[in-house]
Amino acid sequence: MNAETVRIGIAGINGRVGRLLREEVVAAGARLAGGSTRNGILEPVADAATPICPIFTSVADLAKVCDVVIDFTNASTVCAHARDLAQSGTAWVLGTTGLGEREQDAVDVAARQIPVVQAANFSPGVTLMTRLARQMAAALPGREYDAEILEMHHRQKVDAPSGTALAIGNAVADGRGIMLKDHMEVARSGHTGPRADDAIGFAVLRGGQIVGEHSVIFTSAHEQISLTHRSFDRRIYATGAVRAALWTGTRGAGLYSMDDVLGLA
Amino acid sequence: MNAETVRIGIAGINGRVGRLLREEVVAAGARLAGGSTRNGILEPVADAATPICPIFTSVADLAKVCDVVIDFTNASTVCAHARDLAQSGTAWVLGTTGLGEREQDAVDVAARQIPVVQAANFSPGVTLMTRLARQMAAALPGREYDAEILEMHHRQKVDAPSGTALAIGNAVADGRGIMLKDHMEVARSGHTGPRADDAIGFAVLRGGQIVGEHSVIFTSAHEQISLTHRSFDRRIYATGAVRAALWTGTRGAGLYSMDDVLGLA
Amino acid sequence: MNAETVRIGIAGINGRVGRLLREEVVAAGARLAGGSTRNGILEPVADAATPICPIFTSVADLAKVCDVVIDFTNASTVCAHARDLAQSGTAWVLGTTGLGEREQDAVDVAARQIPVVQAANFSPGVTLMTRLARQMAAALPGREYDAEILEMHHRQKVDAPSGTALAIGNAVADGRGIMLKDHMEVARSGHTGPRADDAIGFAVLRGGQIVGEHSVIFTSAHEQISLTHRSFDRRIYATGAVRAALWTGTRGAGLYSMDDVLGLA
Amino acid sequence: MNAETVRIGIAGINGRVGRLLREEVVAAGARLAGGSTRNGILEPVADAATPICPIFTSVADLAKVCDVVIDFTNASTVCAHARDLAQSGTAWVLGTTGLGEREQDAVDVAARQIPVVQAANFSPGVTLMTRLARQMAAALPGREYDAEILEMHHRQKVDAPSGTALAIGNAVADGRGIMLKDHMEVARSGHTGPRADDAIGFAVLRGGQIVGEHSVIFTSAHEQISLTHRSFDRRIYATGAVRAALWTGTRGAGLYSMDDVLGLA
Repeated sequence: MNAETVRIGIAGINGRVGRLLREEVVAAGARLAGGSTRNGILEPVADAATPICPIFTSVADLAKVCDVVIDFTNASTVCAHARDLAQSGTAWVLGTTGLGEREQDAVDVAARQIPVVQAANFSPGVTLMTRLARQMAAALPGREYDAEILEMHHRQKVDAPSGTALAIGNAVADGRGIMLKDHMEVARSGHTGPRADDAIGFAVLRGGQIVGEHSVIFTSAHEQISLTHRSFDRRIYATGAVRAALWTGTRGAGLYSMDDVLGLA
Repeated sequence: MNAETVRIGIAGINGRVGRLLREEVVAAGARLAGGSTRNGILEPVADAATPICPIFTSVADLAKVCDVVIDFTNASTVCAHARDLAQSGTAWVLGTTGLGEREQDAVDVAARQIPVVQAANFSPGVTLMTRLARQMAAALPGREYDAEILEMHHRQKVDAPSGTALAIGNAVADGRGIMLKDHMEVARSGHTGPRADDAIGFAVLRGGQIVGEHSVIFTSAHEQISLTHRSFDRRIYATGAVRAALWTGTRGAGLYSMDDVLGLA
Repeated sequence: MNAETVRIGIAGINGRVGRLLREEVVAAGARLAGGSTRNGILEPVADAATPICPIFTSVADLAKVCDVVIDFTNASTVCAHARDLAQSGTAWVLGTTGLGEREQDAVDVAARQIPVVQAANFSPGVTLMTRLARQMAAALPGREYDAEILEMHHRQKVDAPSGTALAIGNAVADGRGIMLKDHMEVARSGHTGPRADDAIGFAVLRGGQIVGEHSVIFTSAHEQISLTHRSFDRRIYATGAVRAALWTGTRGAGLYSMDDVLGLA
Repeated sequence: MNAETVRIGIAGINGRVGRLLREEVVAAGARLAGGSTRNGILEPVADAATPICPIFTSVADLAKVCDVVIDFTNASTVCAHARDLAQSGTAWVLGTTGLGEREQDAVDVAARQIPVVQAANFSPGVTLMTRLARQMAAALPGREYDAEILEMHHRQKVDAPSGTALAIGNAVADGRGIMLKDHMEVARSGHTGPRADDAIGFAVLRGGQIVGEHSVIFTSAHEQISLTHRSFDRRIYATGAVRAALWTGTRGAGLYSMDDVLGLA
């Protein structure tokens, strides 16, 4: 399917990611078919070259004019969007995080009727890193190679460790056939005792306007191998989401990940 | 096959790696069946716990009392060792580097009769890194992600870039379906012009007694993903070689790599 | 002197740094009194909030309406600007690099009549780093601690090592009481021989849109201490230059560095 | 004073640092005059070249045959050693950590009669790093540059953050004229809220046999400057302590730091 024939909609088009998506849809040569906002108004942006488009106050209406909707809004909207998109047969690229069990169930149900690409992080580099971390953990036994995850984000970030750090931790645990929740070591302070075999440690840095940096570090008595990802620009999430949106054009119903989009699966 | 039943021989047992191998064979619970030296004398070492063993002045004689010979000597010995080991049906773990075409041919011929594990670097971490570098290069297109390789070694090292850095470079080229020699950028200095698409850059640091550090770095306009390996201890090469030696006990003739030994292939 | 009373001019206001300076002068609460361009036209920029100002085709004319002129143009303009600014008694913040002996002489002569702040890099971090590198080199003897400098820049950069890397190298040499040109090791490739005592090594990485990263690394047999600077944003050069421009308001004639502006000297 | 004329004693000569000190005293060309152990026995070590010396069961007796005693024992011995060494007029190099107020008072009293060099870390690199961290903190304002401290140590380490990390944190606080205890952010986990202005953050990694790595990182919206120290070898602490011991030979009574020994003060 040709990029220019795919009609893309942006839920929450005035949001931080929504503004970047406006630019990236056009940069990818695709059609910006519409956006949704709470009040029906498209906020002006400084750069006059940023495209305008029809605005809707509901995703249900937006879905009717689109082949695919990109959605980085918030967890409270997920159940309604799942129903609306499935109903109109519109594909869904879902970057919203913090979903509970009920929300995830709604996504799974929708994915029986439409293509859904769901990811915590749409950057190709982070997707690749998560996959490689699983392989590394599988090849380097936990009694010999201690696994630690380090992340740094901007000073405004209010939670720790980051969702991406936890996703990498899950990949490490998965590679070793263990559960992350049974082996996490976070927030070391005071008398911690020695490190446990098979532990997966987390360390957190905050400062400046760092978009996101993640490392996974495997250390034995004799060597260390580590993988590091740095995001320079939030735009990478928008670029990846648009890539996922175009990719849905050729897919049937199903729940997909960025691994599928990048051909890594 | 049980570690304690494998009879291991060490070619060049007085050498820098040879001394470490003496200790690591025993640490792995295997049998140190003998060693070769030029003058038939086993040099004493400071640590009284280091084991002694029968010494031979030729690898042909050493081979007769061993199931496998570990060989980190030098390229000039390779053709003779290939013939001697094939003749006595003794497996060969070969860490010698700098082989020419003639020497490599001799290795290939021997591998039709005996198991041969050949590697430029026996560290599990470097083996894994080389493999992952190939995957990363395949997933991250060269027109978008610039690949660079950085290495640091001790001040005595006389050549650059290191053999391991070149091996990583070859893996990157391989992942992209190109030839390293057509795309290497080394020794940037003065007016270099802009970086070429698909270039594979090398940078070299020297200092102190650094055993070996290698990074491969993929940088796009929006993100960077890098993989770094640090060797803390030359012993890792000996540990890996002993692991390879024990592994040959259950194998038929053939030319194997550390990927095979680690189960990555 | 109050920021808002200083009249700042920008030579080459349509250039890459010139555009950033337009924004940063206003962000600092100062007055943008004018700019110079070759054709007398101020190019429009996407962001409508970027201020406009009177435009001149010569720095001589620009100088007449300014207290200080910020100049990131090119080496061929330096002699004329030196004469024009000295004549009108206007301070000069000079970020142009690649000056020959004749150009530097012209700067020195001007600095007898007006305050001149000259720097290869106006970032506070790089200024601090250069100063600390000198101290580190003085405290860590060259026969024991090997000094290496690593830099990474964007793929378009056409020369190597960067001017900032060379400035750091000069600071290291200065701290050790030696001359950089006698001890530089660049472009290691092939048979290099062992590292020389007191050598100052340089390694160069290129990729993506990296604004600039510099490290100086001191490695002994037992420890390593390194200092790293990363520029996230070219804007830091503009911010630093505006800070220097405001600082000149309270100074007499003389040649100053960013160390003076930051109070490090 | 010539190294070979200084008579050095080692308190706790059978301990982990004690063994290294035995070797380093001799490597520095100094005289190993004696050692103390609880049971009066000098334990044999693998390397036959390690020197032997007279052994005493009390530091009081050891002090009588020495010009200086190096002491990395434990906090419970400090008061007795202070009294014994002051009484015999023997200089004291004190690396014992975890001192309470009573122990520190005893050290201060002894320093009125004998030269005492007291440090949490005798490595030249860490000493320099701590000093530079203070300067960096003073030059980079806390409302603009966020300070974070990262440390990594071996898997057996039972407390966090390390004493050296806290010492660096104190240096940063000192450089900014604030108290570390009022601004520490450790153990970030869950909902942390945004980073506070002037906060000094700590992050902790554990793994393998890492001797000790420390970084202090200053990050603004536009740039990042960081300082990193890696210890490759515990020996560096012994080397530094012997250097301090030789330095006391030319000093009068007083409480000194490694800054004094290295000439940084």
